[in-house]
Amino acid sequence: MNTEFQPYYAVIFTSKQSNTLEGYAEMAQQMEQLAKEQPGFLGMDSARNDIGITVSYWDSLDSIQKWKQHSEHLVAQRKGKTHWYSWYNVKICKVEREYEF
Amino acid sequence: MNTEFQPYYAVIFTSKQSNTLEGYAEMAQQMEQLAKEQPGFLGMDSARNDIGITVSYWDSLDSIQKWKQHSEHLVAQRKGKTHWYSWYNVKICKVEREYEF
Repeated sequence: MNTEFQPYYAVIFTSKQSNTLEGYAEMAQQMEQLAKEQPGFLGMDSARNDIGITVSYWDSLDSIQKWKQHSEHLVAQRKGKTHWYSWYNVKICKVEREYEF
Repeated sequence: MNTEFQPYYAVIFTSKQSNTLEGYAEMAQQMEQLAKEQPGFLGMDSARNDIGITVSYWDSLDSIQKWKQHSEHLVAQRKGKTHWYSWYNVKICKVEREYEF
């Protein structure tokens, strides 16, 4: 076990798409790129079947808050609500332990 | 904002499948069913493309630990390592905040 484990944060974004997906793929790609450029960004994983799950990892709650308020991200969030998603849920989590195979 | 938010726990399971998937689908279904029957289980979401992401939600670290040690789940974990996954990562997280659209 790694006794030097440094807690960090995960944002679990779970979503259901609507039927109006025009512009979605481009925006998703842009937002992924932009997120990667933010201070405190640590990584991101995504998959989608019936529902989509995107988990992004951050060094602090402050970095998450700044990304949430990023002007271009705010535009994307607005379009997400009005166009692309019929439902979504966001969970802010502290990663306390981790192991890998 | 909900001032009565009760923290709970998320297990983020990220995985890459191997090329030997015989028996995987049945076991995945069995494990999902079995997880749902465990004390403290709150919910589960899954999606898979290049990678798979399964997030399960639990009321406490104790419930997560018990599920990890469940005898049938141990068999599944072993088969996962020897057969179905080329890689996986498990993160135990405390859900601190949540919002929905």
